[in-house]
Amino acid sequence: MKIAIDAMGGDFAPEAIVEGTLLAGEALPADVELILVGQEDVIQALLHVPAFSTSVVEVIHAPEIIAMAEHPTKALTQKTRSSIAIGFHLLKEGKVDAFCSAGNTGAMMVGSMFSVKPLEGILRPTIASFYPKQDGGHGVILDVGANADCKPEVLDQFAELGSVYAKSVLNIANPRVGLVNIGEEEQKGNLISQQAHQLLKVNKKINFIGNIEGRDLFTDKADVLICDGFTGNIILKMSESFYDIFHRRGIEDSFLSEFNYEAIGGSPILGVNGNVVIGHGISSPLAVKNMISLAVKMVESKVLTKIKQALENKSV
Amino acid sequence: MKIAIDAMGGDFAPEAIVEGTLLAGEALPADVELILVGQEDVIQALLHVPAFSTSVVEVIHAPEIIAMAEHPTKALTQKTRSSIAIGFHLLKEGKVDAFCSAGNTGAMMVGSMFSVKPLEGILRPTIASFYPKQDGGHGVILDVGANADCKPEVLDQFAELGSVYAKSVLNIANPRVGLVNIGEEEQKGNLISQQAHQLLKVNKKINFIGNIEGRDLFTDKADVLICDGFTGNIILKMSESFYDIFHRRGIEDSFLSEFNYEAIGGSPILGVNGNVVIGHGISSPLAVKNMISLAVKMVESKVLTKIKQALENKSV
Repeated sequence: MKIAIDAMGGDFAPEAIVEGTLLAGEALPADVELILVGQEDVIQALLHVPAFSTSVVEVIHAPEIIAMAEHPTKALTQKTRSSIAIGFHLLKEGKVDAFCSAGNTGAMMVGSMFSVKPLEGILRPTIASFYPKQDGGHGVILDVGANADCKPEVLDQFAELGSVYAKSVLNIANPRVGLVNIGEEEQKGNLISQQAHQLLKVNKKINFIGNIEGRDLFTDKADVLICDGFTGNIILKMSESFYDIFHRRGIEDSFLSEFNYEAIGGSPILGVNGNVVIGHGISSPLAVKNMISLAVKMVESKVLTKIKQALENKSV
Repeated sequence: MKIAIDAMGGDFAPEAIVEGTLLAGEALPADVELILVGQEDVIQALLHVPAFSTSVVEVIHAPEIIAMAEHPTKALTQKTRSSIAIGFHLLKEGKVDAFCSAGNTGAMMVGSMFSVKPLEGILRPTIASFYPKQDGGHGVILDVGANADCKPEVLDQFAELGSVYAKSVLNIANPRVGLVNIGEEEQKGNLISQQAHQLLKVNKKINFIGNIEGRDLFTDKADVLICDGFTGNIILKMSESFYDIFHRRGIEDSFLSEFNYEAIGGSPILGVNGNVVIGHGISSPLAVKNMISLAVKMVESKVLTKIKQALENKSV
């Protein structure tokens, strides 16, 4: 298995990325090859720090960098030798099994759309994230920011993608799908969620259990939470802020620490023809390590094949 | 000053309501008269428990009860002698200065719309709530559930209402208004928030400071947070759930305990021609006491007059 990592993306790149990749290399099985994509001389200098083993890490040169604030489409079009462009090229050509980056999220979305491309039948690719449950375990929430406005049928498809993802990567046999909403009754909510509820409840590919209110997000009522990217992004960022606030206040708690983005490290883009993982912009080496582990888990679990099967209407 | 309280509304009514009203009566100045609206014999029986002083509490008989799950419009139309209908009647006739209830929220909204009615120029009345800031103090967030779908001009007006409310009740001189969004740049977000941003930034009645992301909701960046009722309700309920989760886990913290709904007790309906406060359905006596205190603060601060002045385009 080969995983490509964008060495130049993220607020603390390339140092944190290289360090995190080496940490991952030490922890992962020997058959996982990690490929750092970026400016070769810069990466090699960091790799030669003696404390690190470099045996499982290769470098592929990419002279250009897409900065965090650059316009995604423009940057990807113009910087064809950037680490993100080359990472997607490797993924598209089948030379790697997954590509991850803590860099420009927009450029990662654009690369997913125009390089590996959405799978046939996908209305809108989506970014999913894990969330902790208050009594242990994890669920999946999507979308968390790729699609601020979503039509009901898009939310319905997110439920299918999220179900396959939860089955494959979290090993949940028959994931319960909940629609994030402001009331339990099916007529509650905004117009989009009212309409989405009607689609979800007749969708035979998923195990829909109804609406989930804000107070129940972290209970064990559901395993997959469906919402538009506006709502999901606010839930995710607000959760992370709770971790930060309480961490600063000296409060440590096992549930709370699950909201530390470092613990999970990355979010997949689901619905495109490749395993793509986006890391947090402020990724530390530990976060990078966990971003890579998630990519490995996605490859191992064959989630991409399973999503394709689900889209072809086979039994999920 | 006279405050009417729905004695029959809430999961623990009438006991918790009567007890909370008596607690409020002990704490408030003698010129505040508290009027319990509901089934007189039931209330009087509770008032005659010897431990309570009843000097500041009157009772107005209302034989009917609107249950928590009843259809709001139907219930209010049919039950003209219910505690909510009679409470609104008292408010409309000017016999009381404020009306509060921990009962059926929908019926309280319908009563506000059809009894005291929206103020001239109001597009949509809104429910506002306080939230704690991580370094102390409070802000106001609106809407928190009355309007799941909001047009941009409605969000723009919420900013005006929230600003007057923050000035009057929180004594914040020039409240900073933030639009809840998923990015700091003005072109970020869903279509509605993009459009609302353009209205807010040219609105001279408010001090708009831009978008506020999920991670910054509880910082001191803004004093008034604007969002649709779908987003606001999820933020509010999720915050309350964090309090509950950590409380159960034995974690006590001053910031966290501010999310205990009991501490604030109620949320006003802004934009209608009367002071109306809605309490949490599961209100305890302490929550009821604080709901009444908020109603008193609203009357004292003349927030209703100030909102009318703001709507008449006078300097806010």
